[in-house]
Amino acid sequence: MDLLKEKIVTEGKVLSDSVLKVDAFLNHQVDPVLMQEIGKEFANRFRDKKITKILTLESSGIAPATMAGLELGVPVIFARKRQSLTLTDNLLTAEVYSFTKQTTSKVSVSHDFIKEGDNLLVIDDFLANGQAALGLIDIAEQAKADVAGIGIVIEKGFQEGGQALRDKGIKVESLAIIDSLENNQVAFKEEALRQ
Amino acid sequence: MDLLKEKIVTEGKVLSDSVLKVDAFLNHQVDPVLMQEIGKEFANRFRDKKITKILTLESSGIAPATMAGLELGVPVIFARKRQSLTLTDNLLTAEVYSFTKQTTSKVSVSHDFIKEGDNLLVIDDFLANGQAALGLIDIAEQAKADVAGIGIVIEKGFQEGGQALRDKGIKVESLAIIDSLENNQVAFKEEALRQ
Repeated sequence: MDLLKEKIVTEGKVLSDSVLKVDAFLNHQVDPVLMQEIGKEFANRFRDKKITKILTLESSGIAPATMAGLELGVPVIFARKRQSLTLTDNLLTAEVYSFTKQTTSKVSVSHDFIKEGDNLLVIDDFLANGQAALGLIDIAEQAKADVAGIGIVIEKGFQEGGQALRDKGIKVESLAIIDSLENNQVAFKEEALRQ
Repeated sequence: MDLLKEKIVTEGKVLSDSVLKVDAFLNHQVDPVLMQEIGKEFANRFRDKKITKILTLESSGIAPATMAGLELGVPVIFARKRQSLTLTDNLLTAEVYSFTKQTTSKVSVSHDFIKEGDNLLVIDDFLANGQAALGLIDIAEQAKADVAGIGIVIEKGFQEGGQALRDKGIKVESLAIIDSLENNQVAFKEEALRQ
């Protein structure tokens, strides 16, 4: 997705060989026009999948997922990382390990909103080791819902999450796949290699 | 805003005289069409204010704020409640006291994205005691940015936050103002009393 790649190159900041900061348009400041285009692109890539709901993770997944939900005409559920005062009953919970923070956290979704028969599109801002996506898949499985695919805004192609998910037979669509952040440069995977 | 009030009545759950659960369309599951209508309504109410950026708070503010940003053609910044791996420098921070949880938490915004000369629209999902809104105003003041107004999805009119903010001379626009949750019933303030 050219608009996204252009944003990454012009407004992203390479902090190390593995960390890309995109606080200027995705993770802290949000560019609503870019989010709308991302939503349309996800919708185009999953329109034939009969998606019933989108499942994402707070906070940075919410904007792109909401725009995709608008395009696909389906509700969006964002899994909670923190405890909510009103979200206490009937919870589906998964543990997500963060390699960068070296901590395990819990993510929760109310069973009220994901049921057997649901056909979910999982959307997240980043895909690196795939732990967050696996946590959301775990939650879907607990609800006996199907995961029709995973839509990722930025995939770190040099980490193993994308391959691991594709090896499970899941359709993973990443709008930008980064091959390398070495030498303070963002190198994207060629489009032809994307699938 | 009739569509919102209808949603509150049909899908909201009154948990007590002071707690309304709207996890079905705003705080956990998100209705993208409703969010788009909310974004348009905020844009209509603040279109003459020359807004340069929208400031909101993760997580439930993000969807309505992003839709409002799309309508107004301005970026959205969501203040962080949690520490971010990449959001560490140049932070503006405010303390927000939660009466319900009886805890104080910090919210942070990067100074990179809010500057002197910015004319901010603050958007949040709920307004009760006004502590979150006051925290965001505090951050705006630290950046020497102006706050042109506050847009709230649901105001608890029986708590003092709305009055306190209006008494400061701030334009507060709440799309639904709840007068009472007593007897397990949602009673809205009359439109004529809204301002």
